[in-house]
Amino acid sequence: APPPEGTAPGFVLARGVCRGLIDLGFAPICEFVPARGLRADVFALGPKGEIWIVECKSGLPDFRSDRKWPGYLDWCERFFFAVDGAFPAEVLPEDQGLMRADGFGAEILRSPAPRPMAAARRKAMTLKAARVGAMRLRAALDPGLSALSGV
Amino acid sequence: APPPEGTAPGFVLARGVCRGLIDLGFAPICEFVPARGLRADVFALGPKGEIWIVECKSGLPDFRSDRKWPGYLDWCERFFFAVDGAFPAEVLPEDQGLMRADGFGAEILRSPAPRPMAAARRKAMTLKAARVGAMRLRAALDPGLSALSGV
Repeated sequence: APPPEGTAPGFVLARGVCRGLIDLGFAPICEFVPARGLRADVFALGPKGEIWIVECKSGLPDFRSDRKWPGYLDWCERFFFAVDGAFPAEVLPEDQGLMRADGFGAEILRSPAPRPMAAARRKAMTLKAARVGAMRLRAALDPGLSALSGV
Repeated sequence: APPPEGTAPGFVLARGVCRGLIDLGFAPICEFVPARGLRADVFALGPKGEIWIVECKSGLPDFRSDRKWPGYLDWCERFFFAVDGAFPAEVLPEDQGLMRADGFGAEILRSPAPRPMAAARRKAMTLKAARVGAMRLRAALDPGLSALSGV
């Protein structure tokens, strides 16, 4: 099924990015906060604990106005921009990753060399992702929960 | 709201256990498989990465027929049984934890001493929980996903 009508372009891309990541064996979490002031569109954990971050750019203005993306580099091993087929991909930094996405999927066009991550940070991010994912899942399964616990 | 009518007693307890764990700052995942042949009713990650497992017992026959619970001890730092107010708690092993639960919440009546867990196993369990939680959450948010990826 297509994304619900009226879904913001960034969310449409994020859905496709998540599907594409799952195809690659990665488990994605949207709107993940690695550190105060940052909110990654898609954070993903690979089978061996690899950490990727994907920022979805719905158009050139969205990319040009984004001053935050370099801040994500310290919080992942590979960083990707995800854009649709109309986006002028040549403006994107060549040393970062690139995915072509739509609402139904995504594929990697360029994969950057992985940057090393300190073991302590990797451990902390994995635990945070586990706890955030589990809490959001519980909130989805037990609608009474939000009111009770402010999850 | 009460659990949906017809919900199996074990699931009613599990809902309350999850709520109780969240009150304690733990992030719970139901039906978690730490290793082949095991399926924990509730697996939970604490703020510092503590790993707990809770088995919900709806009644004495459910406990008496369970030959698997000692298998969970190697996969957590603390193991709890969760039972309702009618359960004869004195039959439960005193060196394991005990929670009193209903569909709305749970409280700890007895907390066992934590067993040490090897760092490699803790790391593997945390990653597995993160990936399982993220995949289930995506499947809940993107109904088209299951058909596509067999999640």
